[in-house]
Amino acid sequence: MNTRLESGKPEDDTRAFRRALGQFATGVTVVTTKGRDALLYGVTVNSFSSVSLVPPLVQWAVAKSAQSYGEFIAVERFAINVLSLEQLDTANNFARSGGDKFAGVKWSAGLGGVPVLDNVAAAFECVLHQVIDAGDHAIVVGRVERFANHGNEGLLFARGAFGTALQYSSANGNAGPEGVDLEVDHGSSMLGLLWGAFSAFSGRFQHERDAEGLTISQSRVLSFFERHPTVDVLTAAHKLFLSETSVEEAIDALRQAGLLTSSGPTKLSLTPLGLQRVVSLRRRVEEFETARLAHLSADEIRVAKKVLKSLG
Amino acid sequence: MNTRLESGKPEDDTRAFRRALGQFATGVTVVTTKGRDALLYGVTVNSFSSVSLVPPLVQWAVAKSAQSYGEFIAVERFAINVLSLEQLDTANNFARSGGDKFAGVKWSAGLGGVPVLDNVAAAFECVLHQVIDAGDHAIVVGRVERFANHGNEGLLFARGAFGTALQYSSANGNAGPEGVDLEVDHGSSMLGLLWGAFSAFSGRFQHERDAEGLTISQSRVLSFFERHPTVDVLTAAHKLFLSETSVEEAIDALRQAGLLTSSGPTKLSLTPLGLQRVVSLRRRVEEFETARLAHLSADEIRVAKKVLKSLG
Repeated sequence: MNTRLESGKPEDDTRAFRRALGQFATGVTVVTTKGRDALLYGVTVNSFSSVSLVPPLVQWAVAKSAQSYGEFIAVERFAINVLSLEQLDTANNFARSGGDKFAGVKWSAGLGGVPVLDNVAAAFECVLHQVIDAGDHAIVVGRVERFANHGNEGLLFARGAFGTALQYSSANGNAGPEGVDLEVDHGSSMLGLLWGAFSAFSGRFQHERDAEGLTISQSRVLSFFERHPTVDVLTAAHKLFLSETSVEEAIDALRQAGLLTSSGPTKLSLTPLGLQRVVSLRRRVEEFETARLAHLSADEIRVAKKVLKSLG
Repeated sequence: MNTRLESGKPEDDTRAFRRALGQFATGVTVVTTKGRDALLYGVTVNSFSSVSLVPPLVQWAVAKSAQSYGEFIAVERFAINVLSLEQLDTANNFARSGGDKFAGVKWSAGLGGVPVLDNVAAAFECVLHQVIDAGDHAIVVGRVERFANHGNEGLLFARGAFGTALQYSSANGNAGPEGVDLEVDHGSSMLGLLWGAFSAFSGRFQHERDAEGLTISQSRVLSFFERHPTVDVLTAAHKLFLSETSVEEAIDALRQAGLLTSSGPTKLSLTPLGLQRVVSLRRRVEEFETARLAHLSADEIRVAKKVLKSLG
């Protein structure tokens, strides 16, 4: 189970340390404020957490390297916007430095004129309560004046990639015979069967990628640059549902492994070894799927795929 | 989209505020230490976040009401154990007050004798760096001396329920035509089709539950007490993959709505209205499934279910 163990002192390998931190999944927020200069500021943050219920306190960490650092540690008010599933673009947009991040973003003015984004999963309008210096960041504690829960499903960030939360229930076959809830006719409902098949299939699939010694980010990045050798990191992150940081780290790791190389000032392409690895992984995946379906007739596979297509 | 909007001041409705906070998904950790009395302490925490890379700082919040509060704000060292998917029992176990929480738990002694749990997703061994008083909690900042990334998939907590993270990729049909990665033969692979069908099906299913005015926790709890009128909150939480807090809140909400009632000192059972609601939701689900499959022949459904069963 611990075949991919990475361990050590954070100082010896900051990236491995960051990968370890990424094992703790989080939602994604955009923290916004109206600066003392009356300009709007916003930054994508996943280091948010609740602190206290009574009084209502929350915290997040702002990077000292952020352009908006000076504002966020000095303003009177800010808002935490917990992004919904539909706001992947918003997450990428506010993660970048510079530019008018609010262009094309729908928001309304909250308490003190602080922008509160539309269509979020939840929003917390805060008064700045305390700032604590902490290494290369500052911990910003806010007292929540007003909250809004929009009921939308939240965007998720885990292991450098964006995603969604999948709650357990007996519907996904994780419960014992007593753990039934009314949502399913245990075992024979289409929803239960779909989940059972998907989770078993994707779980086993993961082992194939692991066997090639690649992380999720690395396998996606490798494949991406095979098809798009001229494209930049930002575009890659966007298209692969990865953060810029994890794309950059994957590129570095793949270069060090001799799988990727620069073919121009802003161009990356696969080395012969990299191409070999992609082909090998692709073949592995095809063989995996063939093997997993080997017990079925061609007709059964055809009907099942037709049904699945019609449900999707 | 915002039909279930809940908003207001946290002071006016602490539970609604907590539900809003739950929109931000998190991993689940157990924070452990060896107390000054040489006893072992451990508590389940989801308010963990990374703070700084250089120096390596992380933070979490300890409740002043926790029995271990006095230890955690005074010890020299502690460890953050990021739980893996297989550690749902561990999460529940360390969330309880009292008892020997370490009984039956596998761990080894880390730096300073602090227990580090086995089979976690990641672990961070910390030196206590700073404690900041913050309402009903204290923020504990630790400097990470040693980390370990075991590569295991992490346990997730979102909206009061445990679950798992599902990363986006072109495999799940969320990517455009350019967003392909090598993991799929876009659109026609069994994995891609399974995901497409499951996500569409379960997304639409959610609307059925919403239409009955119940949250995930409420619908699970209601169904559970229909079948197990004598069972306690702890057992319910365990069997329903919910936190104790969200079970308690669901019970209160269902009692207030006249759907659940006490039938003894530790017994809860459904009122006639509650039973009606369960029957109505169950019928709604059956009708939903029937309608979604109406375009298929009985034979196609039979074959598809057989195939799915064989893959699960």
